[in-house]
Amino acid sequence: MNSSLDAIFRPKSIAVIGASTKKHSIGYEIFRNIIRNEFTGKVFPVNPKADVVHSMKCYNSISEIPDEIDLAIIIVARRFVLETAEDCGKKGVKAIVVISGGFKETGEEGAKLEQELLKIVKKYKMRMVGPNCFGIANFSPDYSLDGTFSKMKSLYGKIGFISQSGALGQVIMEYARSLNFGFSMFASIGNKADISSNDILTYWQDDPEVEIILLYLENFGNPSKFTQIARQITKKKPIICVKAGRTEQGARAVSSHTGVLSNLDVGVDALFEQCGVIRADSIEDMFDTAVALHNRDIPRGDRVGVITNAGGPAILATDALINHGLKVPALAEESQKYLKESLMEVAAVSNPVDVIASGGPDAYRASMETMMSDENIDVLFVIFVPPIMIDHRAVIETIIDVHQHGDKPVYVCFMGPHEQIDGVERLIHENIAVYLFPEYFAKTLSVLAKYRKWVIKEEGAFREFTADKRRVKEIIDLAKSENRKSLIGPEAIDILKAYGIPTPDYELVSDIVDLSNAVQEIEFPLVMKINKPLVLHKTDQGGVVTDIRTSKEAREAFDMLQRSFAAGDEFEILIQRQVRSGIETVMGMTHDPSFGPLMMFGLGGIYVEVMKDVSFKIHPITDLDAREMIEAVKGYPLLTGYRGSKPVYIESLIETLMRLSQLITDFGELDQFDVNPFIVSADPKNCCAVDARFILK
Amino acid sequence: MNSSLDAIFRPKSIAVIGASTKKHSIGYEIFRNIIRNEFTGKVFPVNPKADVVHSMKCYNSISEIPDEIDLAIIIVARRFVLETAEDCGKKGVKAIVVISGGFKETGEEGAKLEQELLKIVKKYKMRMVGPNCFGIANFSPDYSLDGTFSKMKSLYGKIGFISQSGALGQVIMEYARSLNFGFSMFASIGNKADISSNDILTYWQDDPEVEIILLYLENFGNPSKFTQIARQITKKKPIICVKAGRTEQGARAVSSHTGVLSNLDVGVDALFEQCGVIRADSIEDMFDTAVALHNRDIPRGDRVGVITNAGGPAILATDALINHGLKVPALAEESQKYLKESLMEVAAVSNPVDVIASGGPDAYRASMETMMSDENIDVLFVIFVPPIMIDHRAVIETIIDVHQHGDKPVYVCFMGPHEQIDGVERLIHENIAVYLFPEYFAKTLSVLAKYRKWVIKEEGAFREFTADKRRVKEIIDLAKSENRKSLIGPEAIDILKAYGIPTPDYELVSDIVDLSNAVQEIEFPLVMKINKPLVLHKTDQGGVVTDIRTSKEAREAFDMLQRSFAAGDEFEILIQRQVRSGIETVMGMTHDPSFGPLMMFGLGGIYVEVMKDVSFKIHPITDLDAREMIEAVKGYPLLTGYRGSKPVYIESLIETLMRLSQLITDFGELDQFDVNPFIVSADPKNCCAVDARFILK
Repeated sequence: MNSSLDAIFRPKSIAVIGASTKKHSIGYEIFRNIIRNEFTGKVFPVNPKADVVHSMKCYNSISEIPDEIDLAIIIVARRFVLETAEDCGKKGVKAIVVISGGFKETGEEGAKLEQELLKIVKKYKMRMVGPNCFGIANFSPDYSLDGTFSKMKSLYGKIGFISQSGALGQVIMEYARSLNFGFSMFASIGNKADISSNDILTYWQDDPEVEIILLYLENFGNPSKFTQIARQITKKKPIICVKAGRTEQGARAVSSHTGVLSNLDVGVDALFEQCGVIRADSIEDMFDTAVALHNRDIPRGDRVGVITNAGGPAILATDALINHGLKVPALAEESQKYLKESLMEVAAVSNPVDVIASGGPDAYRASMETMMSDENIDVLFVIFVPPIMIDHRAVIETIIDVHQHGDKPVYVCFMGPHEQIDGVERLIHENIAVYLFPEYFAKTLSVLAKYRKWVIKEEGAFREFTADKRRVKEIIDLAKSENRKSLIGPEAIDILKAYGIPTPDYELVSDIVDLSNAVQEIEFPLVMKINKPLVLHKTDQGGVVTDIRTSKEAREAFDMLQRSFAAGDEFEILIQRQVRSGIETVMGMTHDPSFGPLMMFGLGGIYVEVMKDVSFKIHPITDLDAREMIEAVKGYPLLTGYRGSKPVYIESLIETLMRLSQLITDFGELDQFDVNPFIVSADPKNCCAVDARFILK
Repeated sequence: MNSSLDAIFRPKSIAVIGASTKKHSIGYEIFRNIIRNEFTGKVFPVNPKADVVHSMKCYNSISEIPDEIDLAIIIVARRFVLETAEDCGKKGVKAIVVISGGFKETGEEGAKLEQELLKIVKKYKMRMVGPNCFGIANFSPDYSLDGTFSKMKSLYGKIGFISQSGALGQVIMEYARSLNFGFSMFASIGNKADISSNDILTYWQDDPEVEIILLYLENFGNPSKFTQIARQITKKKPIICVKAGRTEQGARAVSSHTGVLSNLDVGVDALFEQCGVIRADSIEDMFDTAVALHNRDIPRGDRVGVITNAGGPAILATDALINHGLKVPALAEESQKYLKESLMEVAAVSNPVDVIASGGPDAYRASMETMMSDENIDVLFVIFVPPIMIDHRAVIETIIDVHQHGDKPVYVCFMGPHEQIDGVERLIHENIAVYLFPEYFAKTLSVLAKYRKWVIKEEGAFREFTADKRRVKEIIDLAKSENRKSLIGPEAIDILKAYGIPTPDYELVSDIVDLSNAVQEIEFPLVMKINKPLVLHKTDQGGVVTDIRTSKEAREAFDMLQRSFAAGDEFEILIQRQVRSGIETVMGMTHDPSFGPLMMFGLGGIYVEVMKDVSFKIHPITDLDAREMIEAVKGYPLLTGYRGSKPVYIESLIETLMRLSQLITDFGELDQFDVNPFIVSADPKNCCAVDARFILK
């Protein structure tokens, strides 16, 4: 039981330490919620200052309770939390939920206290939710446990919900209640000293009580673990996440190209896509999606059949659907023919089908049944504006009936105030989602369509390459010993080489003899760059000579560089074959405070610098991820043969991105890097990295 | 009175023709609404089949009514509409509202009938709303006129609303009612045979009863008139518009470059911006903005002070504000110092100010008053999550009090179900907008900020250039006479020339003698293009020779082109100075079905073809519009001196765009065109159009 979280979510006995008789205190509210909800196990109030709480014998200390205790909920002043936890440990309590605040969230002193609390928890092999949290709950009838201080009674439904914010946890629970929306399990994870969202996600992964997971998160303790767990879970059950604190990243200082670009926040959507998590922009968005997923099949495709009794709303619906990337295809010819015969002469029968204002239950039945059997349609969207002369209740019953007998999802838009239209609750009861305006449906359906594509998407593969780790370690160790953070020139090229990334050979020369040997080795044309002394903006300072075509030109360039830069003994130039006739690309990595290493791909030069045309994925990446990164940039057509040029060898980009991902895994010391440019061309032999820059943490 | 719409919106006497005693009929509902709403003028039911309607004497025909009639509302079967209108005309009725349908919306026959109806209206100098509409209303207490068949009683407020869809008109009116939101005047304009939204906008322009205008439109009868009227009105009062039917444009065939790009729907936001109309993506959006504007000052700036009692919601708010381009700046030092002393030790005092869960009325007062006087802050956003131990009503009263005594707008987010929090209605009553989630506020505030910028934005100027219209007319007439739609090569260049747009001189030559004369005239290097016979894809077919540097090379190129293309007598080449050393741009025009001529600007080549980096404005454009088009493309930094190159002469782009706009005004026959490329460089003398293509309607 230690490894699972049963003691938290499925306890048989609970002690509420700090249970109180004082109304409007948290100790009162939590205890009352447990009682009011009729928790199916035993609950014991503990409070040294009370004999009775809610007509129950109150214990002065947990040690006095004769029964075994699975879970202790702790609501005591901060100064008593540590000894209370110690008491729990001694008593053999399996898990604690620490509601009390005053820990890491208040600063350094609190953080220290939290560390000591965690030590006690570990010592007794307990698990802990919190501190500084809103509580936990399991509303399934087997437990009926509300261990929060919410003011409203929640409903039961097969939805799990994790909130990093107590206040938002409460707000969301209450909002859900107002939508008639229920939960199975809930946890406010507070400061996450022990149990994190990752632990709970793992616990819920195969739990039949949890069919949809809602997350409100501000940061990830272990982002790559989150990615890994989420990738697995989302193939089986949807995770819908509001991730707050996104713009915080704007505040941090970054020095690499990739870092600057990632601040554009362009990557966040990509990141969520990569692990199949459905991103909600707001809490309302989260519920729109949850409502659409709850107890419903995901539509098999994007082709929506729209039925309406008024033109305007159908236009709004079509606009919104098309704008969200969905389709409103014409019905099959036989469908149109049938509807032409069945509906009024002026009715529209293609798609949207407009039964016009006089269309009643029969017109709706004919249109819906036709779409149910039409192979061009995956999902039905039925719009109804209650006209004066039509019995809307009959239309509602027709919608319910066709939905029950058909096998395509039906969504309904009843325009006008729902409280004014009696019968709308019948639709909800029959598990048909009802929208007030067509735009919501379109947005939600596009989210569902994206999720469906994720579920059926093939899994990419992680590849393992042989690499010369020793060499990279040598380079990094040397830099560390010299207190250098930046690795450029030959060191950077050697790192790439060690990871099997093609780079043009180079030679380092400091005198004429070296030079004449070097030019024998390397193919013309050459490029020469000053390596020592250190010159920061080489090109701008005249420290780079390109297009050197003969030995004579090489000698002239060498002399020029020597005259300009040699400082005493210190003079060294790097000679490289000049790579031409390819397309410049850029690859890089930066650290995102929430997601960890973020990999970047873009086309070089103006595309990356002016057009900001780049794509991001979270490390580590599969081959599929790498391919998607490349395909995601707007300039992608330039790589596939623009205006008659040959398509470039995309495989070399994919492999290089994956080799860089492996480098990131192997060397946690790397903070950021750019490979710029990586030249790609049609001929695999002409694909290589020309320059790079690594920055250590 | 004929020129104004007083007879529609401010009638003293109304005849309801088709008033009925049959419940659930439109004739019944409209008449009942007029009576129920206690219209302040006289109303007369007209129905040949009834003697009494709603206890009132019913007339068999309008001619029998002894009184003068300002407005007749017509709800009769289609076949009676024309004679009824004729009767109204004879009676001297000033305006009619035709509710009856069966006209243009049903096809050709109906359209004809509508034309005849319009003739009768014109004959008697009446004005007409409809046919096929939901009615009109003026809820001001001076009129109390509800001439619609809405099922709910509407409220009064200084908002005008025009709906092109009857069904959506009804839905929106009822939705507004559920939000406690009132209207002054309303019109469902139906088929717009006579009165259009433009007429009503003009009528409302200086009407003190209308402070905000809401529009639901599917198309514009006269888009450039709309633009012109809207530009004027929106400087004084906001127009919020849901424009449906946007994606319809995807369906039409287009052949020019500009046309293809405009299908990307990238231009729509720009179009609304250009005339200051606030675009709403959905009906809910429309009301979010209307609520925020109604009876409230527009914030003076973008700097939001956020006050909260919980961390999570403040993070959500900050994220949403920053993502919408607003600012959450740190408070002034003295403000922070004061709050440090006034609030709890662990409170956050920069911005957001977090008074923490224990913060009550005093903490809110201190924070709000500090922000009211802090020069870094333009608008206050107060978030409150009702905690257990705080009296939220006291917090509400504090918010109201500080709002009344301060001079900055205050918006409030009360998280949790509003029906559960008693007192929230006090805020609404005191004219403070209350949001359930912070994201709505952020979105709405960004709309307000954009509108404020529009109101204070300087007016651009339209310029008039001298142009050789005669020459252009000649070219177009020739093409028409030859049944040609496409104008290319010399014809296209001559059109540009006639409008004073710089183009390199060209010569047309068909033999060696011409050639040697021509090369005397034109500066080397030259470019030669086959002009006759007609070759469609000249470059791909080898019909273009560039970089001709000597007379000898010119002769060789000529011979080569002659060998390849000459067909009998037909052979002509165009010789032009080759323009180099500049940046390629593209300008163009296409017709949008809603907005009319759309002008386009982009950088040439890959930028326009692959990156789709273009911007649009509706014709006609001011100098400011032209500048904004240029600045709007992502590649704009390339024009202002990228990596040390000289900035180009932007004025030549602005002037060319405006000259093209004048060409569009002068020649309505032009359907689409591309000027591609227009080369721009630092030297004004090197800025010119190299090629163009015009397509006639």
